[in-house]
Amino acid sequence: MSLALDLVVASRTLAEHGVIDAYGHASARSDTDPQRYYMARNLAPELVTEADIVELDLDSKPVAATGHALYNERFIHGEIYKARPDVQAIVHNHSHAVVPFSCTGCELKPIFHMAAFVGLGIPTWDIRDAQRGTDMLVRTAALGEHLARKLGKHPAVLMRGHGSTVVAENLQRAVGRTIYLDVNARMQLDAAQLAGGQRNIVFMDDAEVAANVSWQNYERSWELWKRKALAKLAAERG
Amino acid sequence: MSLALDLVVASRTLAEHGVIDAYGHASARSDTDPQRYYMARNLAPELVTEADIVELDLDSKPVAATGHALYNERFIHGEIYKARPDVQAIVHNHSHAVVPFSCTGCELKPIFHMAAFVGLGIPTWDIRDAQRGTDMLVRTAALGEHLARKLGKHPAVLMRGHGSTVVAENLQRAVGRTIYLDVNARMQLDAAQLAGGQRNIVFMDDAEVAANVSWQNYERSWELWKRKALAKLAAERG
Amino acid sequence: MSLALDLVVASRTLAEHGVIDAYGHASARSDTDPQRYYMARNLAPELVTEADIVELDLDSKPVAATGHALYNERFIHGEIYKARPDVQAIVHNHSHAVVPFSCTGCELKPIFHMAAFVGLGIPTWDIRDAQRGTDMLVRTAALGEHLARKLGKHPAVLMRGHGSTVVAENLQRAVGRTIYLDVNARMQLDAAQLAGGQRNIVFMDDAEVAANVSWQNYERSWELWKRKALAKLAAERG
Amino acid sequence: MSLALDLVVASRTLAEHGVIDAYGHASARSDTDPQRYYMARNLAPELVTEADIVELDLDSKPVAATGHALYNERFIHGEIYKARPDVQAIVHNHSHAVVPFSCTGCELKPIFHMAAFVGLGIPTWDIRDAQRGTDMLVRTAALGEHLARKLGKHPAVLMRGHGSTVVAENLQRAVGRTIYLDVNARMQLDAAQLAGGQRNIVFMDDAEVAANVSWQNYERSWELWKRKALAKLAAERG
Repeated sequence: MSLALDLVVASRTLAEHGVIDAYGHASARSDTDPQRYYMARNLAPELVTEADIVELDLDSKPVAATGHALYNERFIHGEIYKARPDVQAIVHNHSHAVVPFSCTGCELKPIFHMAAFVGLGIPTWDIRDAQRGTDMLVRTAALGEHLARKLGKHPAVLMRGHGSTVVAENLQRAVGRTIYLDVNARMQLDAAQLAGGQRNIVFMDDAEVAANVSWQNYERSWELWKRKALAKLAAERG
Repeated sequence: MSLALDLVVASRTLAEHGVIDAYGHASARSDTDPQRYYMARNLAPELVTEADIVELDLDSKPVAATGHALYNERFIHGEIYKARPDVQAIVHNHSHAVVPFSCTGCELKPIFHMAAFVGLGIPTWDIRDAQRGTDMLVRTAALGEHLARKLGKHPAVLMRGHGSTVVAENLQRAVGRTIYLDVNARMQLDAAQLAGGQRNIVFMDDAEVAANVSWQNYERSWELWKRKALAKLAAERG
Repeated sequence: MSLALDLVVASRTLAEHGVIDAYGHASARSDTDPQRYYMARNLAPELVTEADIVELDLDSKPVAATGHALYNERFIHGEIYKARPDVQAIVHNHSHAVVPFSCTGCELKPIFHMAAFVGLGIPTWDIRDAQRGTDMLVRTAALGEHLARKLGKHPAVLMRGHGSTVVAENLQRAVGRTIYLDVNARMQLDAAQLAGGQRNIVFMDDAEVAANVSWQNYERSWELWKRKALAKLAAERG
Repeated sequence: MSLALDLVVASRTLAEHGVIDAYGHASARSDTDPQRYYMARNLAPELVTEADIVELDLDSKPVAATGHALYNERFIHGEIYKARPDVQAIVHNHSHAVVPFSCTGCELKPIFHMAAFVGLGIPTWDIRDAQRGTDMLVRTAALGEHLARKLGKHPAVLMRGHGSTVVAENLQRAVGRTIYLDVNARMQLDAAQLAGGQRNIVFMDDAEVAANVSWQNYERSWELWKRKALAKLAAERG
């Protein structure tokens, strides 16, 4: 399956799980040129087809001229690919359960084994630390670079009042991490209420996190998501 | 696309997002006569078709005789159009996450950048301040006028124990604001529980609100919603 | 439309709204003989068709011999019809948001105008007050009679650790009340958390409750529910 | 209906109710040889068909050679079947509302009569008590045996930061218990917030639990679930 089709599956799967709506986007670094990445043109993710995928350089400029508008926030992707050669795929999303963690100083921690990667640490970026009075969007390379610096070596970064950006060594892992980050956030919120605060929750320990993250690739999920997205795509084409 | 068809898309989209059920309604000021507005006849929003759209004057009387019943609460719309020449579209809704803010004295604040307009201030109207012992419905021009006064220059007004009314410079913005008002309310409720109260939440600041509100038109959402609503409409017609 | 078909619409609508699952049931007093009522045979409500409706006397015995099993808890219905000549329809349900109110001593109050009837008072029945060591089900006329006494003149009664039973002057009102009781419960729970307790919530006052309850018949909802249920029924029949 | 088809119904029903996603699995002890059990090959539950069911011995080795991968955590099932001759069916799941109880020391108690079995006691297993630094998965017979010991005579065991494993005398009961365990957990969480803590909740008493558990087989649910799953299966086959 082509990377473009993988991106179609990723986009529709993220929308299906409610972690993105008309906003948010997935990208994948080119498998032939690490200085380029693929991403949909400016379009709601659940409408994306292979024909909508464009190729961008790491300055987030389209490689070929395109008559289509691009996502304003494509710089999130380009600047992270520059800063993190290990990253092959990125999902920027507005997961509803995660936003409350981005603006309260409460740290996300690994409560659920499917989201063990949370234990690698998820910093929070406040766009005001880079520029005051923005509309909250990462519209420039400078903002993207600032965000990438806050991400550092971590698997995700929260964006205050906005959402998060999740990275991985491949696309299916980036999608799986995004979906289970949302689940982990909801569980952590519920557990804190049940236990009377975060201190009374038993989270995964570092050894457990390391043992799980080393292999967790969401294989079985990806097979399911692919099958469902491709069936829907086929139905649309009649 | 005609305003009538836009209202069909708006009605069905609001129902699809669960911010209205059989109750609640969207309207748009006439694009040819600012003293008139369009709105569905008394019908559940998800059943509305173009043939159900009627034209009303600002006293909320139908321009042409109609055999159909009208929404009891059409005065919400007529009186706001009178008081606010800048307003071109209105959504009255019963969003479940918003009602708790309407009856607890807790102020809605802009926690999520997609709902930046919340930062322009959302007052709460208590129908008892206009009339005691009502059935809670805005059944008269007098009640509508009182509500419009509480709305003032703001983009929305909460109605105690009832819901909210959201206004905008165009229909797609009124729909987008309504949907993200619900999301913002849920996030704010969750964040307050996570943080131990509203004081510990970092909301968008005034400069961020202004920068975002100046352009936010929910374009990408509207394209998605239109496509889905029209596809459903076509399927219904067989 | 026949009462039997009304019951099909009611059963499917309640399931569609998640206030009943395989359990819970709706009934209607016969329109020709007030000593009889109609109810489905023992079957999950979303599977009910007109052929599944049976006629029972007020001792909850089938009027005609039937080869089918009946709901164990039909005595809820028969005994309430005996005790309350004004009641024409009953819904017994397991609404998830309502159960927490049934076992915590927290009183449901009218926070949302669509559930104004809550302001008429909703007592809570504990089956242990009638009999100890039951399986929680109202399996006998004696238990049904005890429940009916706790219901008294009210529009609904909570059943501890079980759900609620809602009554009305007609079926569409019983269905509408059941659905909005669930919404009201969720809003009240959220509002209490937002406001730091029930005392800080502004509920509808008695005059507002009376003004609303006098006419609220959920007409627009019922038209919508009927249309959707009948469309689904037609699709099933091919 | 064959046990294999029952497992197809069980798998799809659990996915439909959101208590499992691509992960989690149901099994049933063989009806001809108690030293064997049936379970799907490594596949997302909602994709399972009869052809995917394999037979395993109690050491969780396939009875016949199979080219397919098996679930890593099949040892949960094999070891429980060894330790509990009374158990005929097992569901391992990741129910979202249950995980918070697994890592906070808050005990699940029977708040809802459909989940009366909770009153038989549900211990919590921490994998660290058996082995430190695991990836949280029950990948070996030794871990499965340790889990089975913690389960003891109970109907379910929570697994810290992971989910739960539910057992029963037949498959439909194991499925029903799993689904209502999730409902009970959500109600208990809500009730604790409403009441200001677990102490103020009235749970089912031991006599009520015993009276309910003695017969509760989720018959009406199972008929509904079977009908829906088989209809979907038939549609897939065209």
